Amino acid sequence: MTEKLVLHEYAASGNCYKVRLTAALLGIPLERREYDIMKGGTRTPGFLRDVNANGRIPVLQVGDRFIPESNAACFYLAEGSRLVPADRFDEADMLRWMFWEQYNHEPNIATLRFWMGWVGADKLSEVQRLQMPGKRAAGNAALKLMDEHLSSREWFVGDAISLADICLFAYTHVADDADFDLQHFPAVVAWIGRVKSQPDFLPMHA
Amino acid sequence: MTEKLVLHEYAASGNCYKVRLTAALLGIPLERREYDIMKGGTRTPGFLRDVNANGRIPVLQVGDRFIPESNAACFYLAEGSRLVPADRFDEADMLRWMFWEQYNHEPNIATLRFWMGWVGADKLSEVQRLQMPGKRAAGNAALKLMDEHLSSREWFVGDAISLADICLFAYTHVADDADFDLQHFPAVVAWIGRVKSQPDFLPMHA
Repeated sequence: MTEKLVLHEYAASGNCYKVRLTAALLGIPLERREYDIMKGGTRTPGFLRDVNANGRIPVLQVGDRFIPESNAACFYLAEGSRLVPADRFDEADMLRWMFWEQYNHEPNIATLRFWMGWVGADKLSEVQRLQMPGKRAAGNAALKLMDEHLSSREWFVGDAISLADICLFAYTHVADDADFDLQHFPAVVAWIGRVKSQPDFLPMHA
Repeated sequence: MTEKLVLHEYAASGNCYKVRLTAALLGIPLERREYDIMKGGTRTPGFLRDVNANGRIPVLQVGDRFIPESNAACFYLAEGSRLVPADRFDEADMLRWMFWEQYNHEPNIATLRFWMGWVGADKLSEVQRLQMPGKRAAGNAALKLMDEHLSSREWFVGDAISLADICLFAYTHVADDADFDLQHFPAVVAWIGRVKSQPDFLPMHA
């Protein structure tokens, strides 16, 4: 990649970490630009006009063009690399887990983590409070599905690490921030260890 | 593709329709197998064991293997075709819209359509009822973002129809089922017309 890459991010976001971890494992240099999402840093007129009309991070800037959505940014960085299976079925299966992550995992585990750790339990709205038991149950169901899948295999797709693992790792390995007890999911714990022992692994808070 | 393709589906689901529309535009034959999601047809022990441990449709069966998640199934069918841009940035940008659809569009517009048209307003739980105004606002925000994007272009990515258009079309063109008023989004209405006039276009209820 010859164009300069800039990650517009909030470093504590698991979605932003996915992009940094992908880049680290592939040895791709990224410039980082931090926004304070708690102070509306991604909802300013300039951000909405120039970076992402959807008002969210991460956004991967490629030269003067922009790719919002964490998993799409990871795909851009990793296409053609060892992190994207060459086999047609396996590539679609990788994307299956990435879509599943955004629909079944992130809205439960990441949202509870944000509500509990950033918004604060005492500052939640009534509708947020009422959603917590459902998100807790759905988050545990997502972890259980991952645990069953990993009980007979080392990686989500095929026999090597792929973007499916990176994108699922981001919020799973900090699920205890939202009081999920990973000890109930031993295959997930073992898989977290395998991801962390990858050469060039980058911790979230590095 | 030499292996037999079977779509495990519930025909009125926009997520299932995406896969049928992709196949139709590409001239790919699909066998269809219908499940009654209102009677738990995708939560039986057999379905969970053999088709999708996540208990959802659509699932694309490829020989004796299975791809859950609608957008991943579309990607499997379309990879290497005119519906997936060959350019690296454009392909990631297509996936950006597909991830955005699953996170910002489907949980609002499709969920309200399901709650209003299938569950029934009088049968919603308290937490569902309380979520409706937020989903209404987020659904309208999604349509507004689409409208602004389409105000200066014919298709979501590049200058030709791609999976981004197909995956966004599915629930957008029936958003009035959930009382969204598309007349407020004229660029979206014009784009719906362009999708419908594609050669080999397949209506949802065909």
